[in-house]
Amino acid sequence: MDISRGLSRRSVLAGATAGVLAPVVVGASSAPPSATAAGLTRRVTIYAEQLPGGLYGYGLEPGQATIPGPLLEIYEGDTLEIELVNNTDQRLSIHPHGVNYETSSDGAPLNASFNKPRETRTYIWRTRTQYQTNGGFWMPGSAGYWHYHDHAMGTDHGTGGLAKGLYGGLIVRKRGDLLPLRQYTVVFNEMMINHKMAPDTPIFEARLGERVEWICIGHGNLPHTFHLHAHRWADTRTGMLASATDNAQVIDNKNLDPGSSFGFQVIAGDGVGPGVWMYHCHVQQHSDGGMSGIFLVRNADGSLPAGAQDALDRFKGHVHTPTTTTDDHSVHSMHMSHG
Amino acid sequence: MDISRGLSRRSVLAGATAGVLAPVVVGASSAPPSATAAGLTRRVTIYAEQLPGGLYGYGLEPGQATIPGPLLEIYEGDTLEIELVNNTDQRLSIHPHGVNYETSSDGAPLNASFNKPRETRTYIWRTRTQYQTNGGFWMPGSAGYWHYHDHAMGTDHGTGGLAKGLYGGLIVRKRGDLLPLRQYTVVFNEMMINHKMAPDTPIFEARLGERVEWICIGHGNLPHTFHLHAHRWADTRTGMLASATDNAQVIDNKNLDPGSSFGFQVIAGDGVGPGVWMYHCHVQQHSDGGMSGIFLVRNADGSLPAGAQDALDRFKGHVHTPTTTTDDHSVHSMHMSHG
Amino acid sequence: MDISRGLSRRSVLAGATAGVLAPVVVGASSAPPSATAAGLTRRVTIYAEQLPGGLYGYGLEPGQATIPGPLLEIYEGDTLEIELVNNTDQRLSIHPHGVNYETSSDGAPLNASFNKPRETRTYIWRTRTQYQTNGGFWMPGSAGYWHYHDHAMGTDHGTGGLAKGLYGGLIVRKRGDLLPLRQYTVVFNEMMINHKMAPDTPIFEARLGERVEWICIGHGNLPHTFHLHAHRWADTRTGMLASATDNAQVIDNKNLDPGSSFGFQVIAGDGVGPGVWMYHCHVQQHSDGGMSGIFLVRNADGSLPAGAQDALDRFKGHVHTPTTTTDDHSVHSMHMSHG
Repeated sequence: MDISRGLSRRSVLAGATAGVLAPVVVGASSAPPSATAAGLTRRVTIYAEQLPGGLYGYGLEPGQATIPGPLLEIYEGDTLEIELVNNTDQRLSIHPHGVNYETSSDGAPLNASFNKPRETRTYIWRTRTQYQTNGGFWMPGSAGYWHYHDHAMGTDHGTGGLAKGLYGGLIVRKRGDLLPLRQYTVVFNEMMINHKMAPDTPIFEARLGERVEWICIGHGNLPHTFHLHAHRWADTRTGMLASATDNAQVIDNKNLDPGSSFGFQVIAGDGVGPGVWMYHCHVQQHSDGGMSGIFLVRNADGSLPAGAQDALDRFKGHVHTPTTTTDDHSVHSMHMSHG
Repeated sequence: MDISRGLSRRSVLAGATAGVLAPVVVGASSAPPSATAAGLTRRVTIYAEQLPGGLYGYGLEPGQATIPGPLLEIYEGDTLEIELVNNTDQRLSIHPHGVNYETSSDGAPLNASFNKPRETRTYIWRTRTQYQTNGGFWMPGSAGYWHYHDHAMGTDHGTGGLAKGLYGGLIVRKRGDLLPLRQYTVVFNEMMINHKMAPDTPIFEARLGERVEWICIGHGNLPHTFHLHAHRWADTRTGMLASATDNAQVIDNKNLDPGSSFGFQVIAGDGVGPGVWMYHCHVQQHSDGGMSGIFLVRNADGSLPAGAQDALDRFKGHVHTPTTTTDDHSVHSMHMSHG
Repeated sequence: MDISRGLSRRSVLAGATAGVLAPVVVGASSAPPSATAAGLTRRVTIYAEQLPGGLYGYGLEPGQATIPGPLLEIYEGDTLEIELVNNTDQRLSIHPHGVNYETSSDGAPLNASFNKPRETRTYIWRTRTQYQTNGGFWMPGSAGYWHYHDHAMGTDHGTGGLAKGLYGGLIVRKRGDLLPLRQYTVVFNEMMINHKMAPDTPIFEARLGERVEWICIGHGNLPHTFHLHAHRWADTRTGMLASATDNAQVIDNKNLDPGSSFGFQVIAGDGVGPGVWMYHCHVQQHSDGGMSGIFLVRNADGSLPAGAQDALDRFKGHVHTPTTTTDDHSVHSMHMSHG
């Protein structure tokens, strides 16, 4: 059983100075700080490429495009200069959520901001910290769990790339935010997770007690709800509470509809132990149809906990049923075939 | 006119010491506190049974299954041990949201956690309070308006029970949370409320000025929005604000999509008087098709306010119209037939 | 090119004393304050009228009905008395979200609260400030970005008017809230924005640096997500943060489903410059099908920034494609025909 595709990796472009990790920093620049005081300008080259099956992806190296694309991560105040190399014969672009960009970096045909086929173009994303305005209010900064996607392929509005894999996660952190040990990008798009259906959906792995971060993104045409078993988070910017009296709702199921994103951190297996935990769309026909995956929490020493292999085998053997009728199923024989 | 089904009841398992009420405490145990300091372990037996019409329900006594099942209520730190008696010939389980459980209590076929037909099995749900982590952040506790449901019937993913009535509400409170006088569980599931369509949907009753609590749960395949007339709540854990400067959004309409839940308390008729108030899905075809019910706020002495009987009679006489076209309706004759 | 329909206007009924503007105050009354201490009673007459194409609208003067209707704005504590003149031959009403009303002002057939054809009827909406209850909790007040709509036309439930244009925005402010210079009401209803499809959707205009306010309302039968390019807001009552440590999520894409509403203020072009910015539903087929409009941020002197006219021309020339297939589009020729 191949679970290598679920191995986590730290995102690119995380600030090297503030982390407890040694993240893979791609293109960190020695350029002087931009206009926003503390910010650094970081540069990265992204390659848009065609993939088998009529799909497309973004990658950090030629021939390395993935769906979703690389997880990008910067600090509030930083500027990200993206050199987008279009190795395809399609019009396409990269359009971010959450950050600042001029019309020339909008990534939309409306502003003639896109790469022609085989063209290279630079997009500049700026961020800023919150600032106080009148009356005790603060205008929000850029920190958040965001995402990026093509906004130029296929139609006047430029939505063709969304259906073909051109999307990824983008995190803008505040200085002092906790850094996770592992990161998982989950994109709900039509009836797929990261353009796959179960049992080919990601198996995300961690060891018991590790701090892991989920970046959840919605695309396409359908409403979805993201549910994670045995773990929960606060419905806030960080997924955590800001104080002992923070009255934010704590949730384990949240709408993940087109264009929306959120993120959170959990301690793997905290209070529940290691095991094979489902994450899935809670829309009944969507989960039945294949919108489910696995959060595999290993023992602290990396070994599989008791029962985990059986659960993984069951997951691999599941039959997905777009139309559900109880009467068509012999629930016992289904289970017996697994155990 | 039978409105008895709308009579409220206090949920089971509420803590007896902290309330202004004398709640029905089922299975309160004298066992020593569990690992989480202040918590008690409470035990309850739940019976899963078949109901007429191919439906199923959970109940606290044999032959007493209802849709939705009994409202369960504990305090953060408590442990709930559920002995689930499966009186049916179907594979089924009980899977909670919001609380901690090991894989053996997951309630999902993936972890072989379910009751075979006619089998009894114990599920253990633990809860915890929030705790401070690094950087001024707090990992959230279990307090919230949650829910439980079958996760094993009918399909590999185990969603068959949702369509047949196996679901209910679960409240985890913080010590010090306000306790309501009445509680209403509202489940939006396909085109139904609590598996009924108007005019058979619940009529929830209160007297003017009583503090009542709504637990709203979404299931099925359709997006919904819950709207309550003449009352509103804050979009927080409690539905109330935490301080005079709390900037949370105040709402009277909220997405209630599959797997999501929220709750809130209102003072019945506060600032608006007694009367017959609608609650309904705000999706137009859903409300037209029968997804509406009644919040009947009586006078403080329990009598019906002026006009209430007429409104109840109109509700009972409504014709529901899955496909809406204005031209097909003689709005005057419709109204005259009621008054 | 006619962009006059996008010219902003200050809403009616804003308090004259607290603003930085001189808003159009309609029907400000010299009546003594109502029961809620600081509140004033304000009176306005609204005319419901038929429009071409089988549509209906609300207006402040006879013959001036619009879709959406006039934006109403009061302060928490105020009472709004609406004399609704029904100049149509249909049963209709006005039903608000967020404010207090007795059953006689419910606006619903259930409570026999509506205007018969050609009838005039008064609806009374009251508001209140938050107040402290037990245990450190506060019951929420009425402040928020709300809306009003017909609740009597066409069906028993009274949803016919929603499909025909009878809706508008309602703001209840707290004293001390920031007042914007311009206000935009955006209603997502079926596949339309303000009952129009692109390129006939609103072009909202501002000058660089102006504080503008968006009031977003959902209606109909479909789930939607509202996205604004190059600007963002906090998911709070005001769209701003309440303190430097406010942990609310910052977003630029939010569910806008039937019956829900939210609002926020942004500084036009802040950190991104002037330009032609899209706002649109992020559901792919909805944006492709025409659910997009323009936020035109002019230079500070009112002139068009470079490239803006080209973008506006492209917007006007867009072909909308309810069914998207990349292969059917020659993306280059599409673009070339614009530039």
